[in-house]
Amino acid sequence: MAGGRQLFFKCEIFQRTGAFKFRGACNSVQLLGDEESKKGVVTHSSGNHAAALALAAKLRGIPAHIVVPHTTPQCKVDAVRAYGGTLYFCEPTVDAREAKCAEVAAATGATLVPPYNYGPVIAGQGTIGLEFLDQVPDLDALVVPVSGGGMISGIALAAKALKPGIQVIAAEPAGTNGGADVALSKMAGWVVPVAKPDTIADGLQGRLGDLTWPVVRDLVDAVVVVDEQEIVGAMRLIMERMKLVVEPSGAVGLAAVLSPAFASNTHTRGCRRVGVVLCGGNVDLGARGLWDCWLPQSARRED
Amino acid sequence: MAGGRQLFFKCEIFQRTGAFKFRGACNSVQLLGDEESKKGVVTHSSGNHAAALALAAKLRGIPAHIVVPHTTPQCKVDAVRAYGGTLYFCEPTVDAREAKCAEVAAATGATLVPPYNYGPVIAGQGTIGLEFLDQVPDLDALVVPVSGGGMISGIALAAKALKPGIQVIAAEPAGTNGGADVALSKMAGWVVPVAKPDTIADGLQGRLGDLTWPVVRDLVDAVVVVDEQEIVGAMRLIMERMKLVVEPSGAVGLAAVLSPAFASNTHTRGCRRVGVVLCGGNVDLGARGLWDCWLPQSARRED
Repeated sequence: MAGGRQLFFKCEIFQRTGAFKFRGACNSVQLLGDEESKKGVVTHSSGNHAAALALAAKLRGIPAHIVVPHTTPQCKVDAVRAYGGTLYFCEPTVDAREAKCAEVAAATGATLVPPYNYGPVIAGQGTIGLEFLDQVPDLDALVVPVSGGGMISGIALAAKALKPGIQVIAAEPAGTNGGADVALSKMAGWVVPVAKPDTIADGLQGRLGDLTWPVVRDLVDAVVVVDEQEIVGAMRLIMERMKLVVEPSGAVGLAAVLSPAFASNTHTRGCRRVGVVLCGGNVDLGARGLWDCWLPQSARRED
Repeated sequence: MAGGRQLFFKCEIFQRTGAFKFRGACNSVQLLGDEESKKGVVTHSSGNHAAALALAAKLRGIPAHIVVPHTTPQCKVDAVRAYGGTLYFCEPTVDAREAKCAEVAAATGATLVPPYNYGPVIAGQGTIGLEFLDQVPDLDALVVPVSGGGMISGIALAAKALKPGIQVIAAEPAGTNGGADVALSKMAGWVVPVAKPDTIADGLQGRLGDLTWPVVRDLVDAVVVVDEQEIVGAMRLIMERMKLVVEPSGAVGLAAVLSPAFASNTHTRGCRRVGVVLCGGNVDLGARGLWDCWLPQSARRED
């Protein structure tokens, strides 16, 4: 219960690879024909999509070629490698990533599986909406963190088909420098180019694509924008009260539901039964000095 | 899977009040006769038992009198208050706590509900064993963190009655100053007095009682002692891979299963299907500076 609302959570933190991305990656890999599948798949990603695609390919027994910027955190590189993906390092720019990706695709014949602006990925993420309404049929609204729009467009397509009256709400970080491009674009009616936001929700820094934008434009009912303190507050609430580990991006949906903007928005204020997607739980706790400050002085290692 | 073993987890982190203590507190409160219940219950505790007893009393609509040292962290005081408990502050010594508790009991007529050395509490914690074997009947072993012995004696009584051949294994922190009194006492055959250990597992600093010791002596098959690094390693594994928040004491069972001592112990090395109790998830993340280091510089508050 929160503000008179009953909340239901879809815990994609327990999804394989720790995030919803496995759904779209898995669908993309499974849809390949036997012949084309043998040449494998390729993508460029430094995040959850890379690990998800590597695992999806491994489960089908085909190669995964993953292009990552050389600045990618070691833990994410390790995850891709642990799932059997072949790594290609490049400069940390969009141009360099795309060039390297095209080069690998040309050399191997692998099928490109983009992280969100891609039909099979959108359809895969849409299974969240199917399952949610199967498990809790009488939801008034679904609240979904938004970045490139792959997850929310899949969920909106599935949920509105099953239940046209359901409200589909995007939750978006304001960021402290740029950001909130989905909210701005919805207001403008066209894709407003915005600087990549500086936000704790590092998984939500994508841009709307030509496939996701029309769905977001037509099927998403409202965008609730949250600030950094609201994201941290929601993350803390989820960890301290629900005992679940979420990454900052994964907490953005709850941050939106608890925000004053949600309580006052005409699309959401009347919603009583609200589904919230906790979309990912991959935090590298070691990188934050957490363990050091927890351990008694007498037991700390010097490394 | 871990070292060829299949592990099953009893997630007491999702128990009401965030720890297994609610089982024993609830059983103790429910067993009171109508007349005596009206005078309420009293205990001295600065941990999970205090909140558990306050909630158990609230649910029956009777008063809970909770004696806490004035050094108790604010978050734990707040939890007791939120569950409707009446707080009494005292000096942080065992003598002062017991004296205050006796004083409150005399003034109110409330029934004392000790945290572990008490039949109804032991029986309540034992329901963990009943449920675990109901859910996973073919377990070879149960691994249970030990402190005062209330939880493990309840579980051992229940599990050995249902399945005499099951191994019941205590997991105990070595601490860096004192500690491991259960392991020492089992070896000695009598309760060895040991200094309160300095350990990250702050929930495991109790002492065996005259009710729990005979059960631990006769029904616990082995004690696996773990060091601070093993506890932190297990806690990190649970949070990063299982996406569950445990307190340090709650991770001690997994730390034991993953330790070299478990692999070499004659009682445990052959166990293939092992049940592990994740006994509590109450960490005050705010107190550790976690949120500060996570938040982008630009979004930090000064408070």
